[in-house]
Amino acid sequence: MKRRPDCRPVITLTTDFGLSDEYAGTVKGVILSTCRDTAIVDLTHDIKPQDIAAAAMTIGASFRYFPEGSVHMVVVDPGVGSDRRILAVRAENHLFIAPDNGVLTPVLTEGIFQDAFHITNQDLFQKTISRTFHGRDIMAPVAAKLACGLDISLVGPQLGRRQCCRIPLPEARYANGNIIGEIIHIDHFGNMRTSITIEDLVEIPTGTKRGVSIGSHSINCISTTYADAGPGTLLALFDSRNHLELAVNGGNAARTLGCQVGDEVIVSWTAG
Amino acid sequence: MKRRPDCRPVITLTTDFGLSDEYAGTVKGVILSTCRDTAIVDLTHDIKPQDIAAAAMTIGASFRYFPEGSVHMVVVDPGVGSDRRILAVRAENHLFIAPDNGVLTPVLTEGIFQDAFHITNQDLFQKTISRTFHGRDIMAPVAAKLACGLDISLVGPQLGRRQCCRIPLPEARYANGNIIGEIIHIDHFGNMRTSITIEDLVEIPTGTKRGVSIGSHSINCISTTYADAGPGTLLALFDSRNHLELAVNGGNAARTLGCQVGDEVIVSWTAG
Amino acid sequence: MKRRPDCRPVITLTTDFGLSDEYAGTVKGVILSTCRDTAIVDLTHDIKPQDIAAAAMTIGASFRYFPEGSVHMVVVDPGVGSDRRILAVRAENHLFIAPDNGVLTPVLTEGIFQDAFHITNQDLFQKTISRTFHGRDIMAPVAAKLACGLDISLVGPQLGRRQCCRIPLPEARYANGNIIGEIIHIDHFGNMRTSITIEDLVEIPTGTKRGVSIGSHSINCISTTYADAGPGTLLALFDSRNHLELAVNGGNAARTLGCQVGDEVIVSWTAG
Repeated sequence: MKRRPDCRPVITLTTDFGLSDEYAGTVKGVILSTCRDTAIVDLTHDIKPQDIAAAAMTIGASFRYFPEGSVHMVVVDPGVGSDRRILAVRAENHLFIAPDNGVLTPVLTEGIFQDAFHITNQDLFQKTISRTFHGRDIMAPVAAKLACGLDISLVGPQLGRRQCCRIPLPEARYANGNIIGEIIHIDHFGNMRTSITIEDLVEIPTGTKRGVSIGSHSINCISTTYADAGPGTLLALFDSRNHLELAVNGGNAARTLGCQVGDEVIVSWTAG
Repeated sequence: MKRRPDCRPVITLTTDFGLSDEYAGTVKGVILSTCRDTAIVDLTHDIKPQDIAAAAMTIGASFRYFPEGSVHMVVVDPGVGSDRRILAVRAENHLFIAPDNGVLTPVLTEGIFQDAFHITNQDLFQKTISRTFHGRDIMAPVAAKLACGLDISLVGPQLGRRQCCRIPLPEARYANGNIIGEIIHIDHFGNMRTSITIEDLVEIPTGTKRGVSIGSHSINCISTTYADAGPGTLLALFDSRNHLELAVNGGNAARTLGCQVGDEVIVSWTAG
Repeated sequence: MKRRPDCRPVITLTTDFGLSDEYAGTVKGVILSTCRDTAIVDLTHDIKPQDIAAAAMTIGASFRYFPEGSVHMVVVDPGVGSDRRILAVRAENHLFIAPDNGVLTPVLTEGIFQDAFHITNQDLFQKTISRTFHGRDIMAPVAAKLACGLDISLVGPQLGRRQCCRIPLPEARYANGNIIGEIIHIDHFGNMRTSITIEDLVEIPTGTKRGVSIGSHSINCISTTYADAGPGTLLALFDSRNHLELAVNGGNAARTLGCQVGDEVIVSWTAG
């Protein structure tokens, strides 16, 4: 496989495979069989089984940390073996390979989207195609060939952006003079990411005092760093994705508060 | 270390080390110290501690997805430090490094086996050899040198195939006009792999109606894909290893049925 | 980025990020964006959140298995966003990047230490710096540039060894004619590493009979390998880090004994 001589190919994997089976490993074997010097990076294999929205938010928040030209495989694929399409999408000069089930929603939005193709060219696939593991048998070899320089238009017919499946992702909304969001992810530290982004707060009048509440708990300011609060104290701050996050300095906020994904979070403000 | 100029070496790791300790990481450090541009792939480090049969089935089902010439380290080694041998085996133009405890059973079978050697050449080992971690101190440096092009006959004396330890692995059998197998693995999704392969079913007369039963549950057909059954429905299909698998579409079959490894599974058939 | 032409850069990661989020993955994206052919190795991402001592012991025991010139990122960083410094340290011709919180204690000791620098040169950082993820935004790009050959003195002002934070790590002590230590780590197999090293035993008179006790359990010899004891038997031996370890042959010692990190372990001896 000919490839661009100036840079090593990069492929990322975002899946719900877990790490206890050999599934991610065999995907990598197929990639290396096609394009031996690819740098393969696990974004995570711990997406909850079949949680398309979580995978969509993960890839949307992560791909820009990789070099342009990277190929991102997103394999959360409850419809594997059915007639759901497999997509190759280009956005911001990154490539994305995924089932057409909404998992690419963030890269199908206006602005960053470039073009999309329906992967149908069987010459690019493994010789034997299972009915249950298209990540290994279709997506991996196509990703490797694209990473090595294959022209994306050769994977199959072009699709319009609106022909690709998008799903609603949690967003903040304004109601009763407040910003209402929800917990969208609880991370390894127990930090709780909300659907409220830093952009959602730009319309709050300057000079006002901001507060955040969740259930019966309230926080009377938005911090800039964990160390702004004492050890064990609940605080709100903007995380490394620019989402409002609730955390306990040195502790596990989700466990302390007994919260879970979907719980409502409210940002309010009063004259300072 | 001189290596074949035309391709980057590939080494895979299949172990029971888990990921919470630095064990797999230091194995990789030793490999990179010997052969800097090796692509190292984790097949899994989540083999149940000392589960030789599980590791054997994992490597047997996975190695063909990697390029020829790959070196596969299989380190499930309850006898470490005893006088058990360490093997270098060649099969289907792949290389395998493992303790001689049966973990290479699938690659020692007739047909694919090429040759085997007893690793004894201490010049190839780390300078200091611990008594508890031969994966790092013996297998890793030997694997790296083989991946870089070392002639396998230099690792130590040759062994005949029958001199290498093999263990019985679960297989289906015919009894009372049925095919009897068992659950051999429960994966991250709760899908239950059985010891019954697609080859075991070739003798079932065509035109008959096939059914699968496990405990008090029965399934009256074999599907081709998860989406053939409604959400939450138990189904049977052939998985990406060509083993009969029991799954729940969008759910966790093992949890739903309360099954575990070793449970009996029966395939039967009746005139269609 | 110019780099030494003779060898591929190596960067290791030791963090408390876990693997369920994309955190480690985005760190790797930043590294590959700077230095595309880096070999990135996960030592572990499973350090208990904010457990600085555990991370310190892990990197101290592991870095020598990697080639000289490797860059080791240790990101256990409860003070992220505060005014704690970020260090670049050189020791035994390895480089270490970490917050100045004691996590580099083993490489700051006399003998192996070479020099230390306070990372302040913002030209080396990501363009946007979050307040909560300096591993990705500061340490990763600096590590990648150092791995590619950047002169360490360009990261910021030099610091003396004593200006860098060190923390007390568990060590064995002599008392009442015994050696007293403690459990410092329980590994994936349930093996219990103690703070007692092989060097601690050199002063025991030769020809004496050694015993090890923990709680109400006692072991009347020190074995050289797991297989020295019968299956299911508790034994003591020196592990692959040269620490005294308590293990059960083929079993899980910590679970069998109900022990945890911090429990006292005593080595005693009597005339043979």
